[in-house]
Amino acid sequence: MRAAVFNGPRSIEIADRPDPVITEPTDAVVRVVLACVCGSDLWYYRGIFERKIGGPIGHEFIGIVEDVGLEVQDIQKGDFVIAPFKYSDGTCVHCLAGIQSSCINGSAFGDGTDGGQGEAVRVPYADGTLVKVPGSGYSEEMMASLLTLSDVMCTGHHAAVSAGVKPGSVVAVVGDGAVGLCGVIAAKRLGAERVIALSRNPARQELAWKFGATDVVAERGEAANNAVLELTNGVGVDAALECVGTDESMSTAIAIARPGSLVGYVGVPSDVKVRIGPMFFRNVGLRGGVAPARAYIPELLDDVLEGRINPGLVFDFKTDLDDIAEAYAAMDERRAIKSLLQVGNL
Amino acid sequence: MRAAVFNGPRSIEIADRPDPVITEPTDAVVRVVLACVCGSDLWYYRGIFERKIGGPIGHEFIGIVEDVGLEVQDIQKGDFVIAPFKYSDGTCVHCLAGIQSSCINGSAFGDGTDGGQGEAVRVPYADGTLVKVPGSGYSEEMMASLLTLSDVMCTGHHAAVSAGVKPGSVVAVVGDGAVGLCGVIAAKRLGAERVIALSRNPARQELAWKFGATDVVAERGEAANNAVLELTNGVGVDAALECVGTDESMSTAIAIARPGSLVGYVGVPSDVKVRIGPMFFRNVGLRGGVAPARAYIPELLDDVLEGRINPGLVFDFKTDLDDIAEAYAAMDERRAIKSLLQVGNL
Repeated sequence: MRAAVFNGPRSIEIADRPDPVITEPTDAVVRVVLACVCGSDLWYYRGIFERKIGGPIGHEFIGIVEDVGLEVQDIQKGDFVIAPFKYSDGTCVHCLAGIQSSCINGSAFGDGTDGGQGEAVRVPYADGTLVKVPGSGYSEEMMASLLTLSDVMCTGHHAAVSAGVKPGSVVAVVGDGAVGLCGVIAAKRLGAERVIALSRNPARQELAWKFGATDVVAERGEAANNAVLELTNGVGVDAALECVGTDESMSTAIAIARPGSLVGYVGVPSDVKVRIGPMFFRNVGLRGGVAPARAYIPELLDDVLEGRINPGLVFDFKTDLDDIAEAYAAMDERRAIKSLLQVGNL
Repeated sequence: MRAAVFNGPRSIEIADRPDPVITEPTDAVVRVVLACVCGSDLWYYRGIFERKIGGPIGHEFIGIVEDVGLEVQDIQKGDFVIAPFKYSDGTCVHCLAGIQSSCINGSAFGDGTDGGQGEAVRVPYADGTLVKVPGSGYSEEMMASLLTLSDVMCTGHHAAVSAGVKPGSVVAVVGDGAVGLCGVIAAKRLGAERVIALSRNPARQELAWKFGATDVVAERGEAANNAVLELTNGVGVDAALECVGTDESMSTAIAIARPGSLVGYVGVPSDVKVRIGPMFFRNVGLRGGVAPARAYIPELLDDVLEGRINPGLVFDFKTDLDDIAEAYAAMDERRAIKSLLQVGNL
C-alpha cells in the first residue's frame, strides 16, 4: 500500500509499505477514507521533536473496516469507523477510568503501528479503540466533521472539560489553531455565555465568530492579558483554554484566569516550565493533557450527526496522499489552519 | 500592648506597639487568647523571603471581641471568634465566589495591620472576616483545635478539596508538617478509603496514624515514588496532596498521582517551577494555592466542636509571648511540629 513516511525535517514522502494484516485476534484492518495533518505533526516536521526516519506518520483517520480478528466483537467488516489518535485496549485500569489516552497497552498511531496518513491501518484492540458511525451517505462537509473526532475536536473539548466550562461560564481560548477553534465550539456547546477568542489572523477570527466566539482579542502577551481583564471588569475568565503549548501561551492563560478557576491545557508542551507562584497566590489551577478522545467521541458524534456542531470547517486545505508534502507545508507556513487528505472513498 | 516584631532573620522580639483602636466603621478589635507560628513564618525567619524590619508578625489567632465599629452587624463585643489568616470584605467578586483569600480589599494579618502574635489585633471587615464560635467553657484541647481553623486545618482541607478527594479515594499526602498532618485529617474526613502519609519522622508518623493514615512511606525522592506506586499496584493515587512547596515535593506529588487525577497543592512555593511534560502526558492536574480559610471555617468548626476531628494535636510545643523566640526556633530546628502561644485568657 501507499503511505506517508518521515524522511527527516521538512521531508514527507509517499512510500510503499506492507499491506496491513491481522496479527492479533483483537486487531482490525481499516481502509482509510479521510486522514489529516495534526499541529503536533509539525513538531517533528520542524525538527523540534525526534522521530524515526523512514517510519509511518499520521494519527487521525476515518475509514472502512476491511477485516477483523477472531476476538473482535463490537466492530465488523464493512463498518464505517472513527479511530481516535491513540489506540487503547478498553479494559485496563486507566481505560476503565475514562483516561484511554493513558492506556497501559496503548500508543499513538504511527508509533510502532501503521500511521493514519496511508491507505490502510492495522488497528490494535479494535473493540477498545474504534467507534462505529451509524448510517451512510454523508456529505463531504459531514465527513470532514467526523474526521475531526479523531483528534482535534476531542482535544478542544478536553481543554473545555478540563477547565470546567459550564453553563454561563465566561471563557477565553488562547490559540487560534484548529484545536483552539474547536475549543471555541466546545466551550459554546458546554453552555459558555461568553467566549473570548485570542487571535490576530482574520481568517481564524472569522471562524471563531462562526463557531460562537462573542469577543475577539488580537493583542498578544501583556497587552492580551490586559485586554481580557478589561473585558471581564478586571476579574478574569471563569475558564481559560490553553491550546498552543508555549511558555507565552501558558503564561497568558494563567494570567487571565480568575482566582479559583482552572486553565484547561492541551497544547503539546515543548519543554514548557510553569512558575508556580502566579498560580498559587491566585488559586489558578492547571488541568489537561493528552485528550482521551475515545471517551469523548460518542457524545460528540451525536452532535456532529445532528448538525449541532460543524468542526469540519477547520479544514481549509484539501488534497490527497500524492500531495501530502504540500499539506504539511501549508500548515507549517500557516497558509492553512488544518490540511485534509482524501485517501479513499466510502 | 505587647506584640511580636521581626527584627531580621532569626530575630523575633516582643515590643511595645500601639493599642489597636477602631479606625473604620467595619473594624473590630480582638483581644488575642491563642496564637501560633506558621510554617510560612519560617520563610522570613530564615531570610528566604524579605519582610519589613520592626513590623508586626503572625496571622493565626483566636480571641475575644473587645470593640466593633458602627457598621459591624454580625459580630458583637464579647464574642469568641476565629480569625482566618487573611481578612476579607465578604462582598467583592472573589469573596462572593468563595475565594476570600483573593479578596480585592483583603490581605494577611501582619501585612499592613497588626499581627496575630500580639495581645490585640484590629480586624478590618469584621463581618467578612471573623467567625463566631458558639458556646463557652472549652477545654485546652478544644481551644487548640479551634486555633487550627485560623489557618493550618483549613489549608490541609484546601489541599484535599483541590485534589478532589471523595468517598473511597486513595490519597497520598506529601509533607509531614502541620499542614500535611491536617491534610491527612481532611482526606479521612472527606471519605478517603486509604491515606498514604509520606514521613520519615517517628513523632509525625505517629500523629499521621492517629489522624487516619492507613500507610506510611518513609522514603524520599525516586524511592518514595516507587513505594507509593507499589502500594497502588502501579496505578498511582486518586489524589495527591502537596503540602511542602519545594521542587522535590511537587515532583513527587505529580509522579505518584494517577492519570486523570489532581495534585492539590498548598505548600508556599519558594520559586518552584514545574515541568509541564510529565503532567501533560499523564493528564495530571494541579490545583490549590492560598486557602480561602474563611470559606471553610464554618463546616470544619462543626466537626471540631462535635469532636469528630482533633487537629489541635499538631501543637507539640506550647509557650507564651515572652518565649516567642523559642517558639520560632523550635519549629525552625524541627524540634516542634507547630508552636502554640498562650497570649490571654477567655
